[in-house]
Amino acid sequence: MKNNAIILLSCPDQKGIVATVSNFLFKHNGNIVDSNQYTDKYDNMFFMRVEWELSQFKLSINETKTQFQKIADKFNMKWELNLSKQKFKTAIFVSQWTHCLYEVLLKKEANELPIDIDLIISNHKSIKSIAQQFKIDFFYFPISSSTKEEIEKEEIQLLKKRHINLILLARYMQIISENFISLYPNKIINIHHSFLPAFVGAKPYHQAYERGVKIIGATSHYATSNLDQGPIIEQDIIRVSHKDDIASLQNKGKFLEKKVFIRAIELHTENRILIYKNKTIIFD
Amino acid sequence: MKNNAIILLSCPDQKGIVATVSNFLFKHNGNIVDSNQYTDKYDNMFFMRVEWELSQFKLSINETKTQFQKIADKFNMKWELNLSKQKFKTAIFVSQWTHCLYEVLLKKEANELPIDIDLIISNHKSIKSIAQQFKIDFFYFPISSSTKEEIEKEEIQLLKKRHINLILLARYMQIISENFISLYPNKIINIHHSFLPAFVGAKPYHQAYERGVKIIGATSHYATSNLDQGPIIEQDIIRVSHKDDIASLQNKGKFLEKKVFIRAIELHTENRILIYKNKTIIFD
Amino acid sequence: MKNNAIILLSCPDQKGIVATVSNFLFKHNGNIVDSNQYTDKYDNMFFMRVEWELSQFKLSINETKTQFQKIADKFNMKWELNLSKQKFKTAIFVSQWTHCLYEVLLKKEANELPIDIDLIISNHKSIKSIAQQFKIDFFYFPISSSTKEEIEKEEIQLLKKRHINLILLARYMQIISENFISLYPNKIINIHHSFLPAFVGAKPYHQAYERGVKIIGATSHYATSNLDQGPIIEQDIIRVSHKDDIASLQNKGKFLEKKVFIRAIELHTENRILIYKNKTIIFD
Amino acid sequence: MKNNAIILLSCPDQKGIVATVSNFLFKHNGNIVDSNQYTDKYDNMFFMRVEWELSQFKLSINETKTQFQKIADKFNMKWELNLSKQKFKTAIFVSQWTHCLYEVLLKKEANELPIDIDLIISNHKSIKSIAQQFKIDFFYFPISSSTKEEIEKEEIQLLKKRHINLILLARYMQIISENFISLYPNKIINIHHSFLPAFVGAKPYHQAYERGVKIIGATSHYATSNLDQGPIIEQDIIRVSHKDDIASLQNKGKFLEKKVFIRAIELHTENRILIYKNKTIIFD
Repeated sequence: MKNNAIILLSCPDQKGIVATVSNFLFKHNGNIVDSNQYTDKYDNMFFMRVEWELSQFKLSINETKTQFQKIADKFNMKWELNLSKQKFKTAIFVSQWTHCLYEVLLKKEANELPIDIDLIISNHKSIKSIAQQFKIDFFYFPISSSTKEEIEKEEIQLLKKRHINLILLARYMQIISENFISLYPNKIINIHHSFLPAFVGAKPYHQAYERGVKIIGATSHYATSNLDQGPIIEQDIIRVSHKDDIASLQNKGKFLEKKVFIRAIELHTENRILIYKNKTIIFD
Repeated sequence: MKNNAIILLSCPDQKGIVATVSNFLFKHNGNIVDSNQYTDKYDNMFFMRVEWELSQFKLSINETKTQFQKIADKFNMKWELNLSKQKFKTAIFVSQWTHCLYEVLLKKEANELPIDIDLIISNHKSIKSIAQQFKIDFFYFPISSSTKEEIEKEEIQLLKKRHINLILLARYMQIISENFISLYPNKIINIHHSFLPAFVGAKPYHQAYERGVKIIGATSHYATSNLDQGPIIEQDIIRVSHKDDIASLQNKGKFLEKKVFIRAIELHTENRILIYKNKTIIFD
Repeated sequence: MKNNAIILLSCPDQKGIVATVSNFLFKHNGNIVDSNQYTDKYDNMFFMRVEWELSQFKLSINETKTQFQKIADKFNMKWELNLSKQKFKTAIFVSQWTHCLYEVLLKKEANELPIDIDLIISNHKSIKSIAQQFKIDFFYFPISSSTKEEIEKEEIQLLKKRHINLILLARYMQIISENFISLYPNKIINIHHSFLPAFVGAKPYHQAYERGVKIIGATSHYATSNLDQGPIIEQDIIRVSHKDDIASLQNKGKFLEKKVFIRAIELHTENRILIYKNKTIIFD
Repeated sequence: MKNNAIILLSCPDQKGIVATVSNFLFKHNGNIVDSNQYTDKYDNMFFMRVEWELSQFKLSINETKTQFQKIADKFNMKWELNLSKQKFKTAIFVSQWTHCLYEVLLKKEANELPIDIDLIISNHKSIKSIAQQFKIDFFYFPISSSTKEEIEKEEIQLLKKRHINLILLARYMQIISENFISLYPNKIINIHHSFLPAFVGAKPYHQAYERGVKIIGATSHYATSNLDQGPIIEQDIIRVSHKDDIASLQNKGKFLEKKVFIRAIELHTENRILIYKNKTIIFD
């Protein structure tokens, strides 16, 4: 796999942005392999993702950053630069529900996700054997309402020490404090087992059963301080019927959760997501 | 098309129901062409749909009803008997959004729905020309908050005079009073342009746009006195993205609405739906 | 609706294409509202769609074409320029199956398709009344194997006289000659009632029934001289079961056909489709 | 979980079948928990699945079989009786593609599949460590065209010794001989990575890429002597685009394959499938 650079940027719309960015890359011998843009007509905002090959590019990453900042200043851009080879340092939080955890571990093992899984954190000791099997560090934190503040402090310390920049809530089932979340803005990906905004909060399959819906869903989103209200990355659904009891809804939902969660992780780690006004702009 | 009889029944579960019902039909030379059952394990309730050919059946409809009542009494059944040839006398309520109206009219014209469309009611005069084109009686009721009570009285009178037993709200966009709805329990089918319970009430596509969902849906349900809370008959969804503005959500949603609405009408008019605890049991 | 210009182009990949095109537009005060690109890595081919506003653009369409040709020559581009306001002059061919015809006519009437429907051609006289209802010229051509050559000549003459540049085969059910098709390359859109390449040719629903598939589909594609082998524009599917006989497969398939056909027409008329090696590249 | 008995039967349609079967069960104090039927109108054939609780049933399994045979003789039925608690003795055949294998192993471990996995057979040694991890016997058979006949003999001997009654081809990628297949009619479940009948045979994702389809699929079916032509149990699809190269088709297809394969195994092991004329009748 070649190493590419990817810039994600947003700014007020005006003429010349695409020309300026593409000229900059061309001038330094960059071959653009993918370029995508979107304009929010209501707010007159411009969003762009551009990916180019580094093999013949004349600037170092640092030079690129310095020079691109001048363009950014001119257009009042918010922007970030990432490298396709730069793997995300990842922590997985999980409860006793292991299907999403296994899916991530197996996809990683098959080299299908650009992440390094640094550690697994759980409030269930039983997860330890899975972590060992995949040779990943495991930390048991028996969180409860009384220990929560204390334990979150330890967790945050651990995440910082390990330089974690991606947190996967693989059916974690615990509410994370606002303070914790604020340290990792748009870096915590959750999987919720309903088609949000339907059935927020606890036991969505029970809620779906009660309401008698004919489809159930799963939603992967960035965690924000409002429970289940963060920017939606991916959703999918499956048909159900009156014959499905809660157990069979849970069973059918597992596939959805795995699929939707993995897709969200792929989109994030391929640097395809911009966030604006609590919504995602996804260049896939 | 042969004329078949269909019984829909529900009762507390116990042994011998299927045997008793199937014996009754066999004894009188009825050929069962479809039989389906469901047991709600939580409440120990039994539900059944049985359809048989009338061509060689020895009892008249009236005799069947009289004799079946004895079985019903024994098992404490709620039940109804319908005939496959008996077309529903149908009224369509519609606003200026005509896509669902057209779909129903064209399906009816192509002999794909077992209904007789007796009349179309709208608060928009422009619908008159469509009604004329399909040779259906049209009534213009310029409903408003001040005229609502008066106009609903007229509408009810009209529906009664015409012996209407199925009301289709084909994107009617008006809230019908509890009193009106109570006269037609499980006989009013609405199409709502969201995957309920997400986005109840007005402007669901606007709500969907604001929330940034990645799928939109449509839901057809029986109207009850709680807005958008009635038993769900059918739902479906379509994928959308950040590129979809409200207009394109509306445009993509039209197909869904038509498809979901028609499917609900098919299921109702083929007598495939039982209702229990605000949920539908559908024998399709 | 603003009038925009759209260029679709393809050429061997090399550095500087995006920069050159975006500079050209920027230099003449063009505001790019959408830009999308794709590189075929196997063949090293580059494809691009760029759309810009004409309101403040300094060049006339003719000047744009002349000047852009110089860029095209430099990069060895194939390209075309279209205007978003320029409606396609459309002819619809149809048999006795009218659901796709009605869908197109109603979408057009609701201003949801950028086409002018110039004429309807059918081998069934019954279509005349539909054409009249929508005030569209109708031509009855009772085509048969013996009359085919003669009638196609007349049809081609008619299409030329009317300057038709889009032909919709809305379930036409007749095989069009190679000669006819060659006059309208990538301008004839067909709807086939299967998920191609499964069930090419006649009676796909019968074939699907025989094979016992659990999903049926529909495919819209450009007509080429190889029956049902042209570039695929859009496909969709619906679940079926052993309970579906051929009639119910046909009934369920109608929604699919309408949806897929309309989507293909939208993509084509919004100038979003490039064709390469009998495949479509769709910038949606 | 209660132990239930399930009868699957088929016979020429006539009056009285349902009555006779339900009477038989009622007479011996059987509580029917699910009953489903289907009539093939073209061939006048009747199919039924009936499931009842054994807890209060008065007959032993052997008595049931003896007595039901009399009913079967009267109506000329083909039938079988299974018990819900009777786990299928299962062998998994697999190549180097392990995603379907893992899915089955993890579902089994989570008690979500009523099977006992007796052994795993592969032509790849690398599978051994997976088998060990799940504590399942592993057999390495380095099959090739020259060794095939010999090796299949060994495999058949092994399967017989172990009393295997369900064989899962979890992406096995080897063609099994007619002789082998004939020993396990409707007991070998294959997963094929296309929406059959499109793209039979080798490399369906390559074929899909070449044809430029907009959806890819997966199909699970019973293996018969005609490659990829056996009765279809389950199918599903996912949307793709021109941006998907063969690797990304394979990646997207993995979810489909897992989901479709597991669903087929569930339907088979819950005794929900009857086969008639190379098609499945599924009572789900």
